[in-house]
Amino acid sequence: MADGLVLHHYWRSSASYRARIALNLKGLAYRIAPVHLLEDGGQQHHAGYRAMNPQALVPTLVHAGQAIGQSLAIIEYLDEVFPGPRLLPVDPLQRAAARSLALYMASEGQPMMNLRVLQYLEAKHGFGEDDKAGWVRHWLTVNFGNLEAQLAASPYTGEFAVGDAPGLVECCLVPHTFAAARFNLDMTPYPTVMRIVGNCRELPAFVAAHPFRQPDTPAEFRPA
Amino acid sequence: MADGLVLHHYWRSSASYRARIALNLKGLAYRIAPVHLLEDGGQQHHAGYRAMNPQALVPTLVHAGQAIGQSLAIIEYLDEVFPGPRLLPVDPLQRAAARSLALYMASEGQPMMNLRVLQYLEAKHGFGEDDKAGWVRHWLTVNFGNLEAQLAASPYTGEFAVGDAPGLVECCLVPHTFAAARFNLDMTPYPTVMRIVGNCRELPAFVAAHPFRQPDTPAEFRPA
Repeated sequence: MADGLVLHHYWRSSASYRARIALNLKGLAYRIAPVHLLEDGGQQHHAGYRAMNPQALVPTLVHAGQAIGQSLAIIEYLDEVFPGPRLLPVDPLQRAAARSLALYMASEGQPMMNLRVLQYLEAKHGFGEDDKAGWVRHWLTVNFGNLEAQLAASPYTGEFAVGDAPGLVECCLVPHTFAAARFNLDMTPYPTVMRIVGNCRELPAFVAAHPFRQPDTPAEFRPA
Repeated sequence: MADGLVLHHYWRSSASYRARIALNLKGLAYRIAPVHLLEDGGQQHHAGYRAMNPQALVPTLVHAGQAIGQSLAIIEYLDEVFPGPRLLPVDPLQRAAARSLALYMASEGQPMMNLRVLQYLEAKHGFGEDDKAGWVRHWLTVNFGNLEAQLAASPYTGEFAVGDAPGLVECCLVPHTFAAARFNLDMTPYPTVMRIVGNCRELPAFVAAHPFRQPDTPAEFRPA
């Protein structure tokens, strides 16, 4: 059933990282096709890639010849089509809580640190490294503060964000904290976030999905 | 079953507009509770609102005492819990295509025009009106260009984005073009987008959801 699963990704992209975790949690075999976001003017802009995914973003999942863009759409698709551990809860209110958290990261936090946004602010408005870091840290501070409040208040929070198994939220939360670490964000104000991330860290699905362990990871980032 | 449906919204917010369209397409009765994003330092930041929705964003749907934030989570919830026309297709690949389009607008286009983002660029980096309009138009041009390419290439595009009934994609696309109009974006390069939006315009669910027809719409924006 999983024949032909190919993930077009970039090792460092948060959205790609989400999709890899989801594929691993479902126990699916897949092939990785690297797309370099910086080389050759950005390979995601090349005609061949755009023909597959007109959004010109990573990741793209190809299953049996059909291409799907957007990491959250990929995760929902995997959960609907393949057996294995559920990535979304069964109860509609719990599903809504999981989606709300995932969407909050994907649509309110992550866009502010996307490469193309930082590139635009630098090229058009002269943002230097400090300006870019300040911009990212501002939005991450808002984002993680509100995530912490939501997780701390939710009746569904357990070992993980919704109950006692990792799923959609953790597919987003672990990459989100990985991205934050690049900007040296102080994570001590977010103990619930970090407890959940800590519960993910040693799980094989998360270890194998880590950006430093991908086929296209540059040598200097690989674990010794 | 729909007892107690309350939508906390702001008349002009794109995400609120999405949720109103969805509620109307499902034929659900609901009460609107306005949240003014500008008055009183932004009512979404008030303790009472945050206790309900720690993300401090609109909209929030309350159903039988349970609060759900994030418009796409609200739309999926409504589709899972209530009868009436389906907002998402049945086929998993078509569902993925619909979600991919919706997420592309919600996570790649919309965040760039959010009020708080423009406020930050003005306050911290001195963006004037021209800078802000240039910033928004840049991201909208990318976003609508890629949406047009995806819709023009998709085997699922019919009278609407996925088949011949409006749903999740149109809940996002109509507010997205409404927001673009505020920035005077030239829409002639996007004929497929505009054809689909045109097919929505006269439908009662869309008419009733329009920002100019809400209880909190200022008098100067109301239709004569």
